[in-house]
Amino acid sequence: MGHATDALDAGGSSDGAGRAIGPPGARVFAAQVLRGQAQVTFLPSVAAGAVFCVALFAAGWQYGLYGLVGTAVGTATARLLGADGERVASGLEGFNACLTALCFAVFLGAGHLSTALLALAGCVVVTVVTSAVANLLGVWGLPTLTLPYCLIASTATIAAPGFQRVWHHGAGLAALTSPASGPTALQPADLAEAFFTAFAEIFFMPQWYVGALLLLGILVASRRAAAVACLGSAVGTATAWALGAPAAQITDGTTGYNSVLVALALCGVFLPARAATLTYALVGAAAATAVGSAMSALFAPSGGHTFTWPFVLTTLVFLAGAKSFPRLTGSPEAD
Amino acid sequence: MGHATDALDAGGSSDGAGRAIGPPGARVFAAQVLRGQAQVTFLPSVAAGAVFCVALFAAGWQYGLYGLVGTAVGTATARLLGADGERVASGLEGFNACLTALCFAVFLGAGHLSTALLALAGCVVVTVVTSAVANLLGVWGLPTLTLPYCLIASTATIAAPGFQRVWHHGAGLAALTSPASGPTALQPADLAEAFFTAFAEIFFMPQWYVGALLLLGILVASRRAAAVACLGSAVGTATAWALGAPAAQITDGTTGYNSVLVALALCGVFLPARAATLTYALVGAAAATAVGSAMSALFAPSGGHTFTWPFVLTTLVFLAGAKSFPRLTGSPEAD
Amino acid sequence: MGHATDALDAGGSSDGAGRAIGPPGARVFAAQVLRGQAQVTFLPSVAAGAVFCVALFAAGWQYGLYGLVGTAVGTATARLLGADGERVASGLEGFNACLTALCFAVFLGAGHLSTALLALAGCVVVTVVTSAVANLLGVWGLPTLTLPYCLIASTATIAAPGFQRVWHHGAGLAALTSPASGPTALQPADLAEAFFTAFAEIFFMPQWYVGALLLLGILVASRRAAAVACLGSAVGTATAWALGAPAAQITDGTTGYNSVLVALALCGVFLPARAATLTYALVGAAAATAVGSAMSALFAPSGGHTFTWPFVLTTLVFLAGAKSFPRLTGSPEAD
Repeated sequence: MGHATDALDAGGSSDGAGRAIGPPGARVFAAQVLRGQAQVTFLPSVAAGAVFCVALFAAGWQYGLYGLVGTAVGTATARLLGADGERVASGLEGFNACLTALCFAVFLGAGHLSTALLALAGCVVVTVVTSAVANLLGVWGLPTLTLPYCLIASTATIAAPGFQRVWHHGAGLAALTSPASGPTALQPADLAEAFFTAFAEIFFMPQWYVGALLLLGILVASRRAAAVACLGSAVGTATAWALGAPAAQITDGTTGYNSVLVALALCGVFLPARAATLTYALVGAAAATAVGSAMSALFAPSGGHTFTWPFVLTTLVFLAGAKSFPRLTGSPEAD
Repeated sequence: MGHATDALDAGGSSDGAGRAIGPPGARVFAAQVLRGQAQVTFLPSVAAGAVFCVALFAAGWQYGLYGLVGTAVGTATARLLGADGERVASGLEGFNACLTALCFAVFLGAGHLSTALLALAGCVVVTVVTSAVANLLGVWGLPTLTLPYCLIASTATIAAPGFQRVWHHGAGLAALTSPASGPTALQPADLAEAFFTAFAEIFFMPQWYVGALLLLGILVASRRAAAVACLGSAVGTATAWALGAPAAQITDGTTGYNSVLVALALCGVFLPARAATLTYALVGAAAATAVGSAMSALFAPSGGHTFTWPFVLTTLVFLAGAKSFPRLTGSPEAD
Repeated sequence: MGHATDALDAGGSSDGAGRAIGPPGARVFAAQVLRGQAQVTFLPSVAAGAVFCVALFAAGWQYGLYGLVGTAVGTATARLLGADGERVASGLEGFNACLTALCFAVFLGAGHLSTALLALAGCVVVTVVTSAVANLLGVWGLPTLTLPYCLIASTATIAAPGFQRVWHHGAGLAALTSPASGPTALQPADLAEAFFTAFAEIFFMPQWYVGALLLLGILVASRRAAAVACLGSAVGTATAWALGAPAAQITDGTTGYNSVLVALALCGVFLPARAATLTYALVGAAAATAVGSAMSALFAPSGGHTFTWPFVLTTLVFLAGAKSFPRLTGSPEAD
C-alpha cells in the first residue's frame, strides 16, 4: 500500500521534517505543497504538481489560488500537529486539503469572504479527518484515498443552505431525481471532449484544455500512469455511452472522472502494474460509472454532490476484494 | 460462524475444487450451483437447491433461468479467481449471484437484452464484492450474509434510471414516503397467504405457492430449519399486524421475508439452536419488521428498494451483540 | 477510554453486581439508575442523576417517568443478560435506554399505550445494540457514546409512519429541505436562552429552565465538567450565529446541544483535560454545528431527526484522529 510514496523526486524531501525555517525550509515546503497537488492523482512529483497548478490557474486564477493555498494550509497543519514526516514530505497530507479548498470555491462561490474563511477552516479540519480515516481504515490495511475530503465536502455542501451567511445561491439543491433523458449519440468531437474533461472534472473543472494540461502533468511524472489514466478515461466514457447516459453528462466529464482515478489506483499504485491488475482496474473503472449514477441519486434529495465518492467506494471495495485473489496482489512470478 | 458449511450433503463436494473437467466435473459443478441456490436460506443442500429451482421456474421460467445461470456464473467466477475451495463447494460463492441475477430480472425487466448483460456483469462483480465484504467483516468474525448482493442490487437499481439503455420503465421511483393508510384487518386466508408469501418474497416473488415450494425445500434439507423459518414468518406477520401495517403489505410478504431469514440466521446457523437463541432470534425477527419500514423510507427518495438490507443489518447487530452474552454463544452446558 | 468510570461516587457500587435482592439491592439498583441518567453527560454521579431527574419532571411528569423507567429497564436488561458488572454499576448500561424512552415519548406521543409498549421494547433492544456497537467499535478502542440510542431512535421514528397503530400524527415528516430563512439577529435575552436550551435539547426539551437544572446537575458532579460544557454551549451558539443560522433555531437549542456533548467528551472524558485538548474540543464543538445542519438535510427526505448523530459522528472522528497526535493523548509531561 506504500507505492504512492515510493518514487520521491530528488529535491530535499529526506530532510523535510527536520528543517522548516529559512529559504531551504521554504523550498522544502514548496516542494511538499506541489507534491500535495500531484497526489490527487497519486503522484509524489513536484513537476506534476507544478503543471497541475498551471492547469488550475488556466481554469481561473481564483481556483489556482484556492488550490495552492489549500494545499499549503493542509500541509502546514499536518506539520504543526506532528504528523508523520514521510507522509508530509510525499504530499500525502496535502491533496485532501487541495480538493477541499477547491470544492468550497466551486460550490459556495470563490468570491465570498465566507467561502475563503470556511475553506481555511475546512483545510485544518480535513487534517484531523485524514488522521481519523487512516486509523480507521488501517485495521484493514486500506488507504485513505480522498475519503477525508469527501466527508468534509459532503458535510459542508449539504450543511451550507442551512446557514444564511454561507449560502449565496438562492434556492437550494435538494430534489428528487428523474430518469435520464436527452440525446445519447456522441460525435467524434464529443468523444475527444469527454476524454479530456474526465481529467478536468477530478478538480471540478469543465474545460477540456484544463483536462489536457492535467494529463500532461501526469505524463511528466510517469508515462505508465498516463497510459493507465487514458485507458480509465476511455473505459468510463465507453461504459457511460453503452449504458445510455445523456451525451451532455458524458461530454462534461461527469461520467468519466471517477474511472480515471479508479484505474490509476488499482493498476500501479495500490496493486502492482501488470496485465491481471489492469483488467481488474478497468472492470473497476466501468463499475465506478454505475456507482456514480447511484451516488448521484442518493445525494440528490439532500442537495449533495457525488464528489469522488464513487472512486473512493469502488476502489476500497476492489482493494479489499483483491486480498483474496493472489493473482492480483502476489509477486510477478506468481502471475 | 462456520455452521452453514457443516452439513455438506454426500455428493462429491470434497473433490469439488480439484476436478472441473468432464462429466464428473460437470456433476460437481451442478451440485455446487444447486447448493448455491439453497444457501440463500443457509442450507448447503443439493436437494433443497433443486426444490428452490423448481419454485423459481413455477414463478416464471425467466426467473428460474436467471436464478440458475446467475448462480452458475457466480460460482464459476469464484473458481476462476481462485476463491477458497470449501466455500465454492458448499455454495457460499453462489447465493449472492443468484439473488443478484434475480433482482436484475425483476426490477429491470427480464426480457431486455440489457438486463441479461447487466445481470452477467453483476454476477461477476458480486464475487469481488463478496471477497471484499468477507475481508472487512472478518475483523469482527461476522459472516457476509447477503450484504454483497444488497450492495450490488441497491447500486444497480438506484443507478438504473440514469441510463436510457438500461431503464425501460418510464417514470422513476424516487418519491417521499407518506404515512401508511388502508385497512389493517386480516382474515384467516390473509394470514395463510402472508405466512407463505414471506418465503416467496425472499426471492422477490409474490405468489403463495412459490413460498410453499420454498418452505418444502427447506423442510427437505432440515426439519429444524423449517420449524425455525415458520416461527420467523409467523413472528414477522404478527409484529407487522400488531404495529398496524397495511394488510396489503402483510399479505404480499413484504413485511415478513426478513423475519424468516433473521430467525434462521440467529437460531441454528450462526448461533447454536437452543431455547435462549430461539428467543433471541424471534426478538430479532420482530425487530427486522421495524427495520424494514425504516429502510423503505430511507431508500424511497432515491428510488431504491429494501432488498434484504433489514435482514442483513438486524442480523449483524444481533450477532455482534451476542458476543457479550455467554448464554447465547457458549456451549450447551453453559445454558 | 475508561475515564467515564473513574470517579464512581461512594454509595455501594462495588457490591452492585453481587447483591440484587432486598432493600440494599434496591438501593444499589436505584443508584445505578440515577448514574445511568447522569451518564448522558458522561457523569457516573448519583447526585447529578437525581438533579437530571428533577429537570425532566420539571419539563413534564410524563418525560420524567419515561426517562426514569427507561433507564431502569435498560439497566435491568443488561443485568439479566449478564453484562459486565462495572459497566452496570457506573450507569453505562442505562443512558442509552434513558434517551431511547424519552425519544419515543417526545416523537410518538407520551400518552399513547403503543408508545409506552414500544419504549419498553426499545429499552430492551438498545441493550443488545449497545453490546453490538461496543464490540464493533472496540476494534479501534472507540467508545459507544450515544450511537446505540441514535440507531434505535432513527430506526423507530423513520419506521413509525409505516405503522397505523404507532403513528398518531396525521401527515408524515418526509420533506426536502429549503435554504434557511428568517431573522438571524440575536438579542442578549436570546443569547441567554440559547445558552441554556442547548443543555435542555440534549433531552429534547425546549425550556431554558430545564437546561439550567441540567447544568446545575453537571455542576453538582464536577465543576470542571460544568465549565467545559458551558464553553461548548457558547461555542455552538457563536458558531451557529456566525454562519447565519436562523435565530429561532439558535434560541430553541437545536444548534447547540451537540456542541455541549462534543466539548465534554473531548476534554476530560475520553481525552485528558488540558489546554491542548480544550482547544481541540472547541474546534470539534464548532464542527458539530455544521455536521448538525448536514445531518438534518440528510434525514429530512426520510422524515428522520438528527438526535445526537452530529455529536456521535464528530466525536468519533475527532477521537480516532487524536490517536496520531501525541500532544492530545500523551501524558501531561509530554505537553
